[in-house]
Amino acid sequence: MSTTPPRLAPVASPGPIAPGATIGIIGGGQLGRMIAVAAAQYGLKAHIYCPDPDSPAFEVAGRRTIAAYDDAAALQAFAASVDVVTYEFENIPSDTAEMLAARRPLHPSASALATTQDRLTEKSFVAGLGIPVAPFRAVDDAAGLTEAVREIGLPAVLKTRRFGYDGKGQVMLREAGFDPVAVMASLRDQPSILEGFVPFEAEVSVVAARTAEGGFSAYAPCANEHRHHILARTVVPAPGMAEETAAEAMAIARTIADALGYVGVLAVEMFLVRKPDGRAGVVVNEIAPRVHNSGHWTIEGAQTSQFAQHVRAICGWPLGSPALTGPSVEMLNLIGDQADDWARILAEPGSHLHLYGKGEARPGRKMGHLTRVATGA
Amino acid sequence: MSTTPPRLAPVASPGPIAPGATIGIIGGGQLGRMIAVAAAQYGLKAHIYCPDPDSPAFEVAGRRTIAAYDDAAALQAFAASVDVVTYEFENIPSDTAEMLAARRPLHPSASALATTQDRLTEKSFVAGLGIPVAPFRAVDDAAGLTEAVREIGLPAVLKTRRFGYDGKGQVMLREAGFDPVAVMASLRDQPSILEGFVPFEAEVSVVAARTAEGGFSAYAPCANEHRHHILARTVVPAPGMAEETAAEAMAIARTIADALGYVGVLAVEMFLVRKPDGRAGVVVNEIAPRVHNSGHWTIEGAQTSQFAQHVRAICGWPLGSPALTGPSVEMLNLIGDQADDWARILAEPGSHLHLYGKGEARPGRKMGHLTRVATGA
Repeated sequence: MSTTPPRLAPVASPGPIAPGATIGIIGGGQLGRMIAVAAAQYGLKAHIYCPDPDSPAFEVAGRRTIAAYDDAAALQAFAASVDVVTYEFENIPSDTAEMLAARRPLHPSASALATTQDRLTEKSFVAGLGIPVAPFRAVDDAAGLTEAVREIGLPAVLKTRRFGYDGKGQVMLREAGFDPVAVMASLRDQPSILEGFVPFEAEVSVVAARTAEGGFSAYAPCANEHRHHILARTVVPAPGMAEETAAEAMAIARTIADALGYVGVLAVEMFLVRKPDGRAGVVVNEIAPRVHNSGHWTIEGAQTSQFAQHVRAICGWPLGSPALTGPSVEMLNLIGDQADDWARILAEPGSHLHLYGKGEARPGRKMGHLTRVATGA
Repeated sequence: MSTTPPRLAPVASPGPIAPGATIGIIGGGQLGRMIAVAAAQYGLKAHIYCPDPDSPAFEVAGRRTIAAYDDAAALQAFAASVDVVTYEFENIPSDTAEMLAARRPLHPSASALATTQDRLTEKSFVAGLGIPVAPFRAVDDAAGLTEAVREIGLPAVLKTRRFGYDGKGQVMLREAGFDPVAVMASLRDQPSILEGFVPFEAEVSVVAARTAEGGFSAYAPCANEHRHHILARTVVPAPGMAEETAAEAMAIARTIADALGYVGVLAVEMFLVRKPDGRAGVVVNEIAPRVHNSGHWTIEGAQTSQFAQHVRAICGWPLGSPALTGPSVEMLNLIGDQADDWARILAEPGSHLHLYGKGEARPGRKMGHLTRVATGA
């Protein structure tokens, strides 16, 4: 009997994008910067599109376009120069997304973007999947606000439907007696949504990736601490979050990603709550259709960073392992002048310093972050 | 009694280079590319100087100069635009190094470069420190070659004093009866050095960093396997290398770095040998005054990568921890068409793929590498 030596099947390029191709990135901040660096590791080129000539991402990419997000001619030239398009922020005009999608693969898709960039559409979409969310009502004017408060009760949070981030475009309503006209005016009378306040034990997020073929990979849920509405600290695994609850949170992220037909990395922000029956549960707060600040720990803390994972997903490549590189990981944002402490952080054994190359350390501005991976058990 | 709360002393910038500054890098290959990426993590900008318009490093840097290495005007403009200068390869004309050093801090220094870019000067320098090297003789012509072989014996290796790498500019002499005129002609009659062949058990290297203040940090010695004179595989810790021998190798690297007044990362290539008394020892083969292929495993396999460590050293910052992130690490070079296997490598759990963005996969060309960090004990 003769034996045939085992042969490995040849592996063709798993998708249309191969090393040497160019990824187009809309947005030139730290997220675009870290996507570009991850792309470079795989031999991909990056072309950054951003109106700000001082964009941090320009410093790590071979090509740049400095133009407005609604500059049709610049967008067309940009699309023609790249093989796939992605973005680092969700506040892209829908016309822009559709113009790009007509010319090149756009990941995440224009429809995923449309669903998640409007808080009312997003909340309705999530609730429609049978996933717990805070009670919410659309609010278009002062009368609508009064009516919504009557239905939902207080405390509650009024948020503009679009273009809010880091606590911008939000008003917390604690007690009756506020002036609905003044409150609406403080949000410049924009179409808004009132959300019932959820008494939570912790804020957590699931950062996950999905491929066009339905491949899915989630990092362990992480706990997020905010200060002045800006993420200050992320810890993973989320302390005190039972394995069962973590699995539920990751399953919710998958349900959302599948329903969106999502391609790329997304973050699902949730509240960890105690249900009336005493059991732990999660309530979805919002979806970020992009790499996320609460996933920065993955650069050193996971086998595959969220940025590498995003690149794999949008290129049609297999997803990498989301396993942690240590028993736990901590990420601290460096906000404003906290980044002035860089020399001390550099000298701290086991601290990984990241600075985004932004010029001026304005208060509230995300200047960098640091990551600490615990060693041993 | 009143107690004063403990106060941390303010930490001023430890050197003249602070985040936001620009590092000038001479050479635009994969080493310059990975230095630029490491610099970006710390909020530093990179300006790459390289004559090749298709340089891989251009893709990850905000500024580039395309000019010859002896173009005085271009070099001056380059120096004026950066805060510190370093390089990715040692074959820089000494005039160029001195021109740059007269204008900006150059690390490693022009004198360290001069010592290490000439094999005869380098060997004499190392031997002068009392460190074991192979027997060697200067060879300037056919008569000198005959004389050197008579003194050293065979087998022996004839190498050009300058500009050799990856086995280029070398002739192995195994048996008597060769034509010394033809051998010298094959090296284009360049000034050369004959080195006695060292029977070795393994090729190892120590990648280490030194700061201007004398701070020193070495990674664990790694074992290197070459194929056709090109590094194929690096494993760390070096299998079968006793702790005592590893400590001796690291001490040798420090002696060399101190004697050179070295600033930055260097690699000392050594042979692991069995001494006449049966004990293990090392013999220094050569010094690379730069980040080194045998240190690529440090990107995922060490707390601080060799590229980050180099940036810290040339900026006057404290060195980072060289500790491994797992019990052992393996790095495999992707040479020529081995890089065509990228899709299979991407799909392999725990493999970290790095591609350098080079256009054509010519035979013998270093196209990328992959790293595997062992998990658990």
